[in-house]
Amino acid sequence: MIKGETSPALEAPAQALPGHRVDLGHDEPLKLDCGVELNAFTVAYQTYGRLNADRSNAILVCHALTGDQFMTGDHPVTGKPGWWRQLVGPGLVLDTNRFFLICSNVIGGCLGTTGPKSINPETGQPWGLDFPVITIRDMVRAQRQLIDHLGIDKLFCVIGGSMGGMQVLEWASSYPERIYAAVPLATAARHTAQNIAFHEVGRQAIMADPEWHGGKYQEAGKIPRAGLSVARMTAHITYLSEPALHRKFGRRLQDRKELTYGFDADFQVESYLRHQGYSFVERFDANSYLYITRAMDYFDLASEHDGVLANAFKNTPVRFCIISFTSDWLFPTSENRDIVHALNAVAADVSFVEIESDAGHDAFLLDEPDFRNTLRGFLNGCAERLGISAQ
Amino acid sequence: MIKGETSPALEAPAQALPGHRVDLGHDEPLKLDCGVELNAFTVAYQTYGRLNADRSNAILVCHALTGDQFMTGDHPVTGKPGWWRQLVGPGLVLDTNRFFLICSNVIGGCLGTTGPKSINPETGQPWGLDFPVITIRDMVRAQRQLIDHLGIDKLFCVIGGSMGGMQVLEWASSYPERIYAAVPLATAARHTAQNIAFHEVGRQAIMADPEWHGGKYQEAGKIPRAGLSVARMTAHITYLSEPALHRKFGRRLQDRKELTYGFDADFQVESYLRHQGYSFVERFDANSYLYITRAMDYFDLASEHDGVLANAFKNTPVRFCIISFTSDWLFPTSENRDIVHALNAVAADVSFVEIESDAGHDAFLLDEPDFRNTLRGFLNGCAERLGISAQ
Repeated sequence: MIKGETSPALEAPAQALPGHRVDLGHDEPLKLDCGVELNAFTVAYQTYGRLNADRSNAILVCHALTGDQFMTGDHPVTGKPGWWRQLVGPGLVLDTNRFFLICSNVIGGCLGTTGPKSINPETGQPWGLDFPVITIRDMVRAQRQLIDHLGIDKLFCVIGGSMGGMQVLEWASSYPERIYAAVPLATAARHTAQNIAFHEVGRQAIMADPEWHGGKYQEAGKIPRAGLSVARMTAHITYLSEPALHRKFGRRLQDRKELTYGFDADFQVESYLRHQGYSFVERFDANSYLYITRAMDYFDLASEHDGVLANAFKNTPVRFCIISFTSDWLFPTSENRDIVHALNAVAADVSFVEIESDAGHDAFLLDEPDFRNTLRGFLNGCAERLGISAQ
Repeated sequence: MIKGETSPALEAPAQALPGHRVDLGHDEPLKLDCGVELNAFTVAYQTYGRLNADRSNAILVCHALTGDQFMTGDHPVTGKPGWWRQLVGPGLVLDTNRFFLICSNVIGGCLGTTGPKSINPETGQPWGLDFPVITIRDMVRAQRQLIDHLGIDKLFCVIGGSMGGMQVLEWASSYPERIYAAVPLATAARHTAQNIAFHEVGRQAIMADPEWHGGKYQEAGKIPRAGLSVARMTAHITYLSEPALHRKFGRRLQDRKELTYGFDADFQVESYLRHQGYSFVERFDANSYLYITRAMDYFDLASEHDGVLANAFKNTPVRFCIISFTSDWLFPTSENRDIVHALNAVAADVSFVEIESDAGHDAFLLDEPDFRNTLRGFLNGCAERLGISAQ
């Protein structure tokens, strides 16, 4: 165990989770965009594969809104396979025989890293809404401290989709000298009005649930299940495409063969959505959902650089591979192309591929052959250049 | 006042609304698709313009999900101008100097026509969830009884957008001999899986609100404001397009010029959405929202005709004008084109125009010049043919 780690068994229940945890902030406080400084925070993370002798094969994977550090293998909470099982493993695209993968739960999260459900040391109570509002840049600052702690000077690559892609862009902008390659997937350099609107609906649904108790539901021994479930259902629709929903469900009815003329789930798509909502509540914290959606809404990389996105990447030494998906209407190709244009404007090393897929935004979680091959080609090409081979 | 009308002042509060009301079902019960027969129901409606001597200039306007019979002029509940003020009036496209316009609140609605908030004569209590589930065809059956009551053998035209367009299609299919022309706008012959999904989220939000009281909120003296508001917010996003939201709001902040690092409405789009949600609650009934969204979900015109949409229009004498809008992602052009294909397959008289607009689904409510001109051309052309002139 690396120095500074706490024992997973020391605190319950988040602390009972498997994997690594490290207490940071003591030597260097985490200076948040909102002005608050955290001088004690925990980062929970998983690693996959082995760090090579010259510490040159580390890939930081940034998870999306409701993702976490458990990319593959059985998830300790849900028991289901991890969210990137299709890509992470021996011989897979993110080849654990070749690379050392690090994935940490974001600050504000609910799977071991400090967030609103953690105990506020000043009060001995859960932070709740007293937790400071965090930003994508704050998430990246916490990750940078983790990477320092792990003794890695330069990451081979930072990769992530959706909110993970926002973190990748922020890494490339804030710490260009600390990364060799960057792969932002299905993402944007700013959250659009429509996406802010969808997030706002989710937050309103949570905050309207009386079981939310003004954010103090833990103290009340309650969970705002209904509100969080509705938030998840809305969001889930936006992760898919109409063609994907049509292919999966169309207007097919549930077990019953006929319309019931009632308000139970008649259509398969209804019962699927309800299941998505209910099961989400078992693994995610409602206040974390508020904080992380807010971080995404606030993200606007150009605004951190005098309103000019290209300024975020001036003289960047980073190699970029940007990938979008044709049916993704949440982070459409046009948003990804805006990033490419900004990188072109500073003569950065950038490749851009739009993958044909009808899976919607969630395509980046799937093993789409063109996606897999594009990603494999880019990573292996960069690895060859740096002389990183399988161990 | 036409025979059979009740006095608006007899019952409160819906009955206190201005306009016409007629009690139907006594002579001919309303046979609903679910098997229930209503032998006493009320239809509230408005008329605009004057019926000509040979009763040939009547246009039935079918309203959308949250629309009502108050198309133009000040709305009696909200005080705001009616939903089709841009198109209805003297000299406008739906020219009240030339045509006699009829618009009735749909069965299941909440502005005077019998629906779940009406009193169930058998119990003396509001129907609530005991109200039978209704379909688009049921709405049209009630309208047909209204048209009979008004002594109109043949409507010059039936027109409507969105759910109104579904009613237009159902009219053309069920009563082709009773209409001369049909104008379905921004609609579909079946509700898609994605649209069912969005409706399901709205219903779940309403039913999750403890103030909903299992549908008996009227008896409890409550209103499920929060749930209905969230339902409306979600739906409202789908009525607009990302470009329209971007143009209207972008990432612009509220009065405050800086991010607040909190959960109040920082962005203009958030406060706009919240306002949409709150104000909707003042004019719409939560149970009606459940029933009417369900009717749309159930709509699948082909399924009423052995699964072949063209069969719905065999030998149709009706002239069709179908209009879609480029940025409408709720009822996209592809869905409208499916209707055109079915009509072509039976050699129907059909014209089809896709209007360039970035306003999203709501474009049919606006005075878009191409839309206005297309509609005016079609209606005036048909009117010339029938010798209907301004009065």
